[in-house]
Amino acid sequence: MTRAAVTAAYGARAGEYTDLFGTMDAAHAADRALILDWGRRLDGPVFDVGSGPGHWTDFLVRHGVDAEGIEMVPEFLEHARTRFSDVRFRAGSLPDLDLPDASAAGILSWYSLIHLAPDELPAALAELARVIRPGGGLLVGFFTGERVEPFAHAVVTAYYWPIEALGRLLAEAGFRIVATSSRADPGGRKQATIVAERV
Amino acid sequence: MTRAAVTAAYGARAGEYTDLFGTMDAAHAADRALILDWGRRLDGPVFDVGSGPGHWTDFLVRHGVDAEGIEMVPEFLEHARTRFSDVRFRAGSLPDLDLPDASAAGILSWYSLIHLAPDELPAALAELARVIRPGGGLLVGFFTGERVEPFAHAVVTAYYWPIEALGRLLAEAGFRIVATSSRADPGGRKQATIVAERV
Repeated sequence: MTRAAVTAAYGARAGEYTDLFGTMDAAHAADRALILDWGRRLDGPVFDVGSGPGHWTDFLVRHGVDAEGIEMVPEFLEHARTRFSDVRFRAGSLPDLDLPDASAAGILSWYSLIHLAPDELPAALAELARVIRPGGGLLVGFFTGERVEPFAHAVVTAYYWPIEALGRLLAEAGFRIVATSSRADPGGRKQATIVAERV
Repeated sequence: MTRAAVTAAYGARAGEYTDLFGTMDAAHAADRALILDWGRRLDGPVFDVGSGPGHWTDFLVRHGVDAEGIEMVPEFLEHARTRFSDVRFRAGSLPDLDLPDASAAGILSWYSLIHLAPDELPAALAELARVIRPGGGLLVGFFTGERVEPFAHAVVTAYYWPIEALGRLLAEAGFRIVATSSRADPGGRKQATIVAERV
């Protein structure tokens, strides 16, 4: 999908999406713990790339993390800036974050890589590697499956990634895998995380 | 391994084990969140079966859960009763918990099934199913792998279980699988959880 198509698709359903997923009440306890534990270990600016309704950025900020959201969907940006008025959000998207080299202590990419086609992913990961300083952290949340394949996500086409396959791309982009996890709730898609460190 | 052999092996290394794993500092943030979220939803007595040094039992009690530890290794029991003097611990072990039928709102089995040989597991799960009331919860933590096979655990032989294989045994014992998760830290064994409900 082109960036414009994804932006338009989310823009058209931003209200509905925000109602369903745009609060921490909708977040799984294990995700909250993982993201908070990860964020608290980072010393410096953290960017929530693809911050959507902004609730994860706000969650990090409220827990003392120097976090800022980056989002390409105007409707999400407007919601986030209104709802979390003391939190910083900027317009932007992969693969061009418009941030200096090695300027981030960490980047959270929470279900924001899922709509990239497999051939678009290496450039996006290279951009994350450019922006994260050596020793800095990356946390990726995504849907996982046995093979790389598209599926009909409620908003716009997304891709399942085996943990190992995404891990290999991250390693090629200059990251060391620190930890992985996955979770399955019957009837739901299998979800996964990768915590990585910029080499 | 016989129960006596496992008890003796843990007894001989109880101090070392407690130093390494016997505090919540050693617990992964995602595990803390998962167990707490699970425990808080249960309304009634919760038993931490194989409570070891007792830190998870204490953790649940401190967060308002009506939890009690059950442990077969005397050295662990003594440590737990001393360290967490306001928490209840009793001597006991699978496959005979000496508890009334349907008396538990939930049972936490955190790495306490791992030393059972595969042919011993059905009786242990049947005992859990006997004690947990219909609608009650079970949370199992264990090491996972591609197949059921023994490995040289630091204390005494343990077994890897594929999530699906253990899930099938749980279903046969009268449980419905609610959620599963797994986590891998490079250099460490892959860890998994199953949350199940007594049918």
